[in-house]
Amino acid sequence: MANEIRKDYLLDRWVIIASERARRPTDFPTRTSERIDTKTCPFCPGNEKRTPPAFLLYLPFDGGIKKGRDPNGERVKNWLVRCIPNLFPALSPRKSVTLGVDELHKREDGVGAHEVIIESPHHDEHLDRAPLDQTRLVVQAYMDRLKDLSETWEYVSIFRNHGKEAGASLSHAHSQIIATPMVPKSITDELTACRSWFERNGGCPYCEIIRSERDSHRFIYENHNFIAFTPWASVYPFEFWLLPKKHQHTLLQVEEKEKNDLAQALKICLGGLAKILNDPPYSYGFHIAPTRGKHEYFHWHLEVYPKLTIQAGFENSTGMFINVTPPEMAAQSLRDSIKEVEKNG
Amino acid sequence: MANEIRKDYLLDRWVIIASERARRPTDFPTRTSERIDTKTCPFCPGNEKRTPPAFLLYLPFDGGIKKGRDPNGERVKNWLVRCIPNLFPALSPRKSVTLGVDELHKREDGVGAHEVIIESPHHDEHLDRAPLDQTRLVVQAYMDRLKDLSETWEYVSIFRNHGKEAGASLSHAHSQIIATPMVPKSITDELTACRSWFERNGGCPYCEIIRSERDSHRFIYENHNFIAFTPWASVYPFEFWLLPKKHQHTLLQVEEKEKNDLAQALKICLGGLAKILNDPPYSYGFHIAPTRGKHEYFHWHLEVYPKLTIQAGFENSTGMFINVTPPEMAAQSLRDSIKEVEKNG
Repeated sequence: MANEIRKDYLLDRWVIIASERARRPTDFPTRTSERIDTKTCPFCPGNEKRTPPAFLLYLPFDGGIKKGRDPNGERVKNWLVRCIPNLFPALSPRKSVTLGVDELHKREDGVGAHEVIIESPHHDEHLDRAPLDQTRLVVQAYMDRLKDLSETWEYVSIFRNHGKEAGASLSHAHSQIIATPMVPKSITDELTACRSWFERNGGCPYCEIIRSERDSHRFIYENHNFIAFTPWASVYPFEFWLLPKKHQHTLLQVEEKEKNDLAQALKICLGGLAKILNDPPYSYGFHIAPTRGKHEYFHWHLEVYPKLTIQAGFENSTGMFINVTPPEMAAQSLRDSIKEVEKNG
Repeated sequence: MANEIRKDYLLDRWVIIASERARRPTDFPTRTSERIDTKTCPFCPGNEKRTPPAFLLYLPFDGGIKKGRDPNGERVKNWLVRCIPNLFPALSPRKSVTLGVDELHKREDGVGAHEVIIESPHHDEHLDRAPLDQTRLVVQAYMDRLKDLSETWEYVSIFRNHGKEAGASLSHAHSQIIATPMVPKSITDELTACRSWFERNGGCPYCEIIRSERDSHRFIYENHNFIAFTPWASVYPFEFWLLPKKHQHTLLQVEEKEKNDLAQALKICLGGLAKILNDPPYSYGFHIAPTRGKHEYFHWHLEVYPKLTIQAGFENSTGMFINVTPPEMAAQSLRDSIKEVEKNG
């Protein structure tokens, strides 16, 4: 296969698909496993005092789940999921004052929210290996926090960094949320492209992408409500996207009966990735509509980026990318691996 | 200092300057030095046969320098700088055929050039520690290759990755060049912003930026023809930019008498960075005008990105950035360090 340069479905983002130097799963270095000391991990049960009080807890109750929070000065012990403020927030909730300096030096106050969702009391119970009910609780926590933060901020970014090479400073299973006082650039670009498509073709481009990728060599997984594939112009080796089949512009539109499918899709796709690349570092981020305004032409999705290569001088100075694993090759490996994960439960 | 969110001078790129968790030079982990085996390094003298023949060599000649190339099947030995094709090119020079698939799946042939400039016969003679004459030869090589590649391709990206954390797969002092059949996104965005500034204000925004940063807390270095500062909305801790003071849209406009100043600015600024952060990994990339068309409102510059932190889920899914070292704090450290480098020759 010859090298080619592919354009993202919608964005002006070009990726060099370097087939001539294509790297298969076994060509990437294996991650050294991190030493885990649950005595010192601030996210492990028993160490709750090392973190700020939780403003949201899921607790076992009468065979089901109830919500709670840490009372003043105390920490509840038997939690299943724990939501806390980030101890070193990138943004914090203070009154916003726009601080223009001059045309070349613009700034705003660093206001917003930065939160951590501790996904499980078990240090190493990441989404691919947690029981489905636990992953479903994490989905529920995403939605609860999104709903709450949407009342104050313009955008809510929900993301997960796994492994220290992907920026996770703690190895305990956790996700993060940063709420911002502006709509971030990547989301604005996607909204603009979606609106432009909508005006030209009268529909949602992501619905069209789902239709075309479902029958392509890039398809990797689907259940009743969700579908996953490696995107046409994948920026990263083994990158994949997960989307609701039904047109929804925000995660808040996921219905009660669909949450299980979302948890299952996460568990199985991340399980396939972990199996094929020996639990590689990765990060993922939800792309959802901004909290205000009508964005019905947008289709929310999750983008999963394995961290197997380093982006440096070329990528940083051009905004172009080099991907050494063609998405069709990545998809074939992921499909096989996902089948095995499904077979073994 | 409170956290703030800053906008790039020209681009719609927002950076959270996280002053509340500000990290000083000593707060970053020290890089483990790489074991160097000059016997096996393909870029070291004696191992030239392990690389493709050089199409450009700088050779000592009669007290000066002459240009040469490897004859068929042989390798010249006493080179000072060696330019070779990349053995695993991301792009290679074949005939271009635009291959549209459909509106959502666009691609072009992977044509272009991917070259390596071996900067010195001495494995570890990086730009900050090489004699000035050697660094001047590297500048000359950039310009010679740029001139040549400009005849065929739309854009020529000249970049350098230093340290394995910054993507350098070999530790021998080297730079890379990728020539592309299209103008990359980052350059298009800068051109658009410059043209818009030009139409509004009638001048070059970078000339204005130089005027304002020269007297600011972000200034770090200048000589007769070049200036360096940490940019207002630095994306990376200790990021700095280097610009010609005179308005020039491409590196090809650097005059004979200015080359020494460019080499000196590179040597001293990179020396200051190496000194303060114990030879940290970094990458840099030249931002120059595309090879075709008039771009006289553009001002070429070099952006240097130290690799001290990891960008992951938040940055990748929003296009926003978190910088844990305010540029004013970085500039103060760099200024002090650069003064010492200048004092000690």
